[in-house]
Amino acid sequence: MWNVRLPRLDVLPDERADRIERAALKLLEEVGCRFAYPPALRLFRQAGAELEGDVVRLDRGLVARSLELAPPTFRVRGRDPARSVEIGGEHVAIAPTGGAPFVLDPERGRRPPTAEDHRTFVRLTQAVPQFHLNEAGIVEPDDLPVTTRHLDMDYDVLRWSDKPFFPVGASAESSRDSVEMAAIAFGGREAIAREPVLLGIVNPISPLQYDERMAGSLMSYAQAGQPVVLMPFVFTGGTAPLGLAGALAQTTAEVLAGITLVQLVRPGTPCVYGSSISELDLRDGRPRFATAGHGLAMLASGQIARRLGLPFRGGGGFTASPVPDARAMQESLMALWPALLSGANVILHAAGWLEGSLVTSIEKLAQDVAALEVFERLLEADLPVDEESLALDALREVGPGGNFLGAAHTLRNLRRSSPVGGVGWRPWQDLLDAYEDPGIDSTVDDALRDYLARRKREARRAG
Amino acid sequence: MWNVRLPRLDVLPDERADRIERAALKLLEEVGCRFAYPPALRLFRQAGAELEGDVVRLDRGLVARSLELAPPTFRVRGRDPARSVEIGGEHVAIAPTGGAPFVLDPERGRRPPTAEDHRTFVRLTQAVPQFHLNEAGIVEPDDLPVTTRHLDMDYDVLRWSDKPFFPVGASAESSRDSVEMAAIAFGGREAIAREPVLLGIVNPISPLQYDERMAGSLMSYAQAGQPVVLMPFVFTGGTAPLGLAGALAQTTAEVLAGITLVQLVRPGTPCVYGSSISELDLRDGRPRFATAGHGLAMLASGQIARRLGLPFRGGGGFTASPVPDARAMQESLMALWPALLSGANVILHAAGWLEGSLVTSIEKLAQDVAALEVFERLLEADLPVDEESLALDALREVGPGGNFLGAAHTLRNLRRSSPVGGVGWRPWQDLLDAYEDPGIDSTVDDALRDYLARRKREARRAG
Repeated sequence: MWNVRLPRLDVLPDERADRIERAALKLLEEVGCRFAYPPALRLFRQAGAELEGDVVRLDRGLVARSLELAPPTFRVRGRDPARSVEIGGEHVAIAPTGGAPFVLDPERGRRPPTAEDHRTFVRLTQAVPQFHLNEAGIVEPDDLPVTTRHLDMDYDVLRWSDKPFFPVGASAESSRDSVEMAAIAFGGREAIAREPVLLGIVNPISPLQYDERMAGSLMSYAQAGQPVVLMPFVFTGGTAPLGLAGALAQTTAEVLAGITLVQLVRPGTPCVYGSSISELDLRDGRPRFATAGHGLAMLASGQIARRLGLPFRGGGGFTASPVPDARAMQESLMALWPALLSGANVILHAAGWLEGSLVTSIEKLAQDVAALEVFERLLEADLPVDEESLALDALREVGPGGNFLGAAHTLRNLRRSSPVGGVGWRPWQDLLDAYEDPGIDSTVDDALRDYLARRKREARRAG
Repeated sequence: MWNVRLPRLDVLPDERADRIERAALKLLEEVGCRFAYPPALRLFRQAGAELEGDVVRLDRGLVARSLELAPPTFRVRGRDPARSVEIGGEHVAIAPTGGAPFVLDPERGRRPPTAEDHRTFVRLTQAVPQFHLNEAGIVEPDDLPVTTRHLDMDYDVLRWSDKPFFPVGASAESSRDSVEMAAIAFGGREAIAREPVLLGIVNPISPLQYDERMAGSLMSYAQAGQPVVLMPFVFTGGTAPLGLAGALAQTTAEVLAGITLVQLVRPGTPCVYGSSISELDLRDGRPRFATAGHGLAMLASGQIARRLGLPFRGGGGFTASPVPDARAMQESLMALWPALLSGANVILHAAGWLEGSLVTSIEKLAQDVAALEVFERLLEADLPVDEESLALDALREVGPGGNFLGAAHTLRNLRRSSPVGGVGWRPWQDLLDAYEDPGIDSTVDDALRDYLARRKREARRAG
């Protein structure tokens, strides 16, 4: 991951941030959050929360106790320990986009993805040093059965990459599969509970609702001690109030409700505050990405997460453009800059996103990697000032009107001073060519394959 | 201009910034700065500076006294007083690119610009609200005689725009013309000395050198009390030492030498600290734009200017790409974001720049305006948090799992909440269609035309 030395941008005066937080707590006490999943409701009831049907009202005492249990930083282990990442504090870990139902094929255009595409993206993510986290489900392979494709996607990541990862998990069952397979690859459930190896993504169904699948997924991760990223993805005027303050309060309430459930399942399980507030254009009903409001809300969300003592997930390079053109690049960077300046500790969708999440493009991904290379240096803000870098000897040698091309100082520093950026991007094939198979212990691989085979048999019987 | 509420990004610990400033002062004392212009040398000699040929060594006392005379903020008046801009403090004023020897014609491709192109860009700059400063010489009309085209370009701005502006002025004589024409348009030399109407750009010939034309231009502006933007434009490893710290020290020294001369000519004349540090790739000898080093140097320069109590000029949307493609957009935004976060008070080249300053593109300009619209809202960071914006009533009304599309709060706030950005850009023709001729008093116009005719006659006689 990167160690960010560039300061974060706080956009909210303290008084405004306070007010948003108080509104979130009020929402949880007065309106509540729906959890359409009986095991979750049982836990809330045991904890003394007030239930009305499947709507849970949480008092601020319970929320505060849950927040205290969630660590401000934590570590996620990679299959190669050198690739482990710290989540929180001054660190930021980057991942490409995920979840798209289409790929933009450089030759054949927009089409459903295949299992082969999925492996390609997993390898590409492994190969590019600017990605710190790999991801199952960068695209959704259309040639694999729906009920079991999560197993194949998780296997791809565990087999072809040694970076920590986001599993597919989108229900109690599939998240349990993710955890089981990770346990096989990393020495058992106890080992991964001690040192987490994956980041589970849980999206509330905004406003203020976790459905059966999401609440179930959350509980599966928490039971296994795996970190949970609570990630509302809202549109103001649609799934959140119009304007930004209300959407920020709602996002905060949804995250806090999720964190409370995680901590009831297993106290101390790491949680990440996620936020992505986009705007609907109510004149045509269309979502707009990378607006000014999106950027401001991203900065404000990061600030609120910091105040709550939680790692923050922001991102990414959002755009509505269906092709990797100048518009796509403009929107991506108008969204990605605020995410990186927000103090986000995890950025998903940092590369390859197109058409409002419908499309993953390998060409756009390669373009975005060029920006990430520049961001890496910029955010680490390494600007040494010492005798050698001040170069007064060179300035004396060259003097007014001269030229530094042949100066002793230039020749001495030639290797250390290669510029980063400003030359466009390498073709995606070049990035992929750098891929090296990290290998896998054959007994582990056999065990993973056995698990896959067994679960597929069960699915066939059930189907 | 915009009132920026987003915090600035300081990248240098105080100790490092101190060291760069001390190195700059040392450079001026020990190496000195060349002024290849006898009137400037006379002023320096009278002020007690040590001269060796045309190299002037400035002691830190003289430099400090000059700095104290330069105001931290000042006002530049527009022909329409409502378009006057404050330079410095929390303000930022934006201008499109300038000085390109080619235009990229949307139909005919890259070609030499004409006088008609120049008028088109002046009108476009007048029409777009995100440009606060107009500019003579956005392109260099190839169909006008070299010796007098500055007159036509300055006239275009004075006639077709009522915004404050950058004149062409690139020598003692042509800057005197700029001042004289501005005096005609704004009520005389005394009036413009009391309240400046233009921003003169003076580029040192790095390293540490002002040639006859630039020193002469500087003195013409200063004599007329017009603000001077001291703008080194250096390439590390070529016109500045390799690495960033030395280039920052050199840039600071060049700016301070220029400011000292301005204050010797006319104490209290406003000065702007300018900086643009780009990197040469010494493997192929090519300049690279929008690198990580460029961004860091921009942020550091803004910080140094703030410490010196000077307004800062940064910018702009730099790229080496010859066409307005995704690469051009990526590089532009990787350069423009740091400029805006550096606390720049004046940003030149914010739109329309291509091919390393060789080309102005009207299509790229329109693309960049879309980003500027987003920047405007982002930088003003207007995120109200009050009862209405928190929308708790809407959240209570809609409740878990609902939808805000028809909520009373949504309908009530519909007009106030249009998203900015996320829809690409309008065609440049649309931007130009919004142009309205601001008109000009006919006696002023006649006087300007008389001045042009007289100066052109003189040039013909001299030629």
